[in-house]
Amino acid sequence: MAKRLYEAANAPKGCTAGAASAYPGAAMDQSPTLAEIQHQSVTFPGGLTLDCGRRLLEVTVAYRTYGTLNAAKSNAILLCHALTLDQYAAEQNPVTGKPGWWDIMVGPGKPIDTERYFVICSNVLGGCMGTTGPRSPNDDGSGQPHSGQPWGTEFPQVTVPDMVRAQKLLIDHLGISRLFAVIGGSMGGMQVLAWAALYPAQVFAAVPVATASYHSAQNIAFHEIGRQAIAADPYFYAGRYWSEGVRPERGLAVARMTAHITYVSEEALARKFGRKLQNAEGLSALGDQFAVESYLQYQGSSFVQRFDANSYLTITRAMDLFDLAADHNGVLSAAFKGTKTRFLLVSFSSDWLFPTAQSRAIARALNHVAANVSFVEVQSDKGHDAFLLDEPDFHHTLRGFLAGCAEHAGLV
Amino acid sequence: MAKRLYEAANAPKGCTAGAASAYPGAAMDQSPTLAEIQHQSVTFPGGLTLDCGRRLLEVTVAYRTYGTLNAAKSNAILLCHALTLDQYAAEQNPVTGKPGWWDIMVGPGKPIDTERYFVICSNVLGGCMGTTGPRSPNDDGSGQPHSGQPWGTEFPQVTVPDMVRAQKLLIDHLGISRLFAVIGGSMGGMQVLAWAALYPAQVFAAVPVATASYHSAQNIAFHEIGRQAIAADPYFYAGRYWSEGVRPERGLAVARMTAHITYVSEEALARKFGRKLQNAEGLSALGDQFAVESYLQYQGSSFVQRFDANSYLTITRAMDLFDLAADHNGVLSAAFKGTKTRFLLVSFSSDWLFPTAQSRAIARALNHVAANVSFVEVQSDKGHDAFLLDEPDFHHTLRGFLAGCAEHAGLV
Repeated sequence: MAKRLYEAANAPKGCTAGAASAYPGAAMDQSPTLAEIQHQSVTFPGGLTLDCGRRLLEVTVAYRTYGTLNAAKSNAILLCHALTLDQYAAEQNPVTGKPGWWDIMVGPGKPIDTERYFVICSNVLGGCMGTTGPRSPNDDGSGQPHSGQPWGTEFPQVTVPDMVRAQKLLIDHLGISRLFAVIGGSMGGMQVLAWAALYPAQVFAAVPVATASYHSAQNIAFHEIGRQAIAADPYFYAGRYWSEGVRPERGLAVARMTAHITYVSEEALARKFGRKLQNAEGLSALGDQFAVESYLQYQGSSFVQRFDANSYLTITRAMDLFDLAADHNGVLSAAFKGTKTRFLLVSFSSDWLFPTAQSRAIARALNHVAANVSFVEVQSDKGHDAFLLDEPDFHHTLRGFLAGCAEHAGLV
Repeated sequence: MAKRLYEAANAPKGCTAGAASAYPGAAMDQSPTLAEIQHQSVTFPGGLTLDCGRRLLEVTVAYRTYGTLNAAKSNAILLCHALTLDQYAAEQNPVTGKPGWWDIMVGPGKPIDTERYFVICSNVLGGCMGTTGPRSPNDDGSGQPHSGQPWGTEFPQVTVPDMVRAQKLLIDHLGISRLFAVIGGSMGGMQVLAWAALYPAQVFAAVPVATASYHSAQNIAFHEIGRQAIAADPYFYAGRYWSEGVRPERGLAVARMTAHITYVSEEALARKFGRKLQNAEGLSALGDQFAVESYLQYQGSSFVQRFDANSYLTITRAMDLFDLAADHNGVLSAAFKGTKTRFLLVSFSSDWLFPTAQSRAIARALNHVAANVSFVEVQSDKGHDAFLLDEPDFHHTLRGFLAGCAEHAGLV
């Protein structure tokens, strides 16, 4: 099949910007849908020093933009994506063929209005959609090229702040000295918090949605189920499945199914499926007897076509490691001391993965340093996934907050 | 190793009571800890017709008793066990070497006082501790012996009412015409409800704890994760792993880990582990970095030593199928019409698997038929597992309820 090149009209010039393949060689290509695509990206030959102390020889950041950067370069909004999402926020996803994950939110006249704002979304460090990750060729740990084979599980464990540092390279490359806003939900919200803590002068407004300042023991436990399921798959081959020509599909599917349950509320599952039997003929222990089961199995099997197991391991672990207070001697407010950033915190009432109490704790820490903070709990029965869905209250709130900030920032 | 025979002092005489091996042949024995034990049991050659319409050629029920049956045979309490528990409620478990699962509740002077009551606990139909289940030799579906091989996944899908029917055979065999009480938590509570619905005249008092009248879509989904993980294990061999000399240990461990998270509350996990790193040296995606992970892995690996994967499939599915209202044209109260049984419903405030609202719905249905019902929500932060743990409020409540019922039953 012909490789499809996703190159934006406003692709940056200079540097080594271009269409980097997301994987090092065709021999490794066990994922045609992932492999046939070359993502718009920029490579930073200076590399990046990570929280773990290791240095990546070079870093490629794959990204997409929507709208137009104004002359003052003051209207840029960075979107930070969640665990299994990617840079294709507001256009058809080239891997899945589906609409962008935030099409409902981003576009002309939409709450994040691309007629007013220049919207940037990049694939996170450790990802599998063009940014440096476990599929990238390895180095020897001291910044020299190594075997040229993919890192696999040897990829240095990145953190959420590391993801933000990679995004910062991109923002600098685009010549943007201050982001008008950084917005993201779930792990995207963690990145927003890390942006506000690491680069307060570069963030005019921050919108962490359905997130927390640390990953809870329960959430770590759910991630660990997924990792164990992947590691238990006989096709995992200790992370070297690419060179074996296979993928740990069933393990990855179980991981996805587990995570998916945590993304939806009990109410949403009950409304959608209840106890609807789809296979009332005869009873059996295996097989999709209930509608909710075939739905979950579909979620699992479609996921393995678009995501890489080693990236799943790396990114879930990055989320688990996130603990902003711990990085500041256990005092969360210290992360935001003196901040001038305007915050909008949003939680959803039925989100049991990142419950409202965790957003409230962030609001409290921001209040302790007299930050400018708004906090809204949106009433919703859609669970954690609500931030991606049609929630008019959330959309109105975000639209209004951005309009207010635009006035304060002199954007209008 | 010598086979250990667990035969109670008060083992029933007559019938074909005795020590039946839990599995058909040594060649199938891939589970030494499960296999080396012969459980006290009674075999009913008349078999049992199941909800699915199939008939089991014969049924063996493994059970244990504590205390002494009085002359009037009026002081018997049946305990119904939860998903992965067994008949060893109040004594050392011969497989695990650990105390009985309800040692804290059952014994001389304890809330379920074996100096007053004769306590019976049997392994459920479909189980792996001596009662007929997937490890039993198969028949041909019309009630004739077949290959003599274990059923495996061909074991007819049993239901919670089927479990109760098997228990009823045992109770009749013991010459008990009316149980003073039937008590159980979680799936045990479902059995209690089924007892009250199927045999109201045989149940003086019923105590369904931390349970529901149907299994929710979310709970079905969690079970489905476990079943998928087992089916994905290369050592599952479509349920014929015994004859291959292997066990789907990693899949079963993932299933157990998933279930275990649902048994504990977020508060309990946070209190016990928080975000305690146990392996702060170096970051990696796999390996037990957080204390909660090694705890989960321990839960998973110890479980595979004491439980059989096919039984796990069968029993989780039986729970999923439970829907007492559906069995009565969608009207839950119809299940209890005219009941004279005295009910005590107990829920735990932090139980998110079987939340209080589900017990409240049962109480409402019982009120609709003017049943004698008490309902207590115990304040606890221990989650679903609270019914097995030291919860003084629960223990006081149950002790008091049984004492009151004993008066009404003329037991004192």
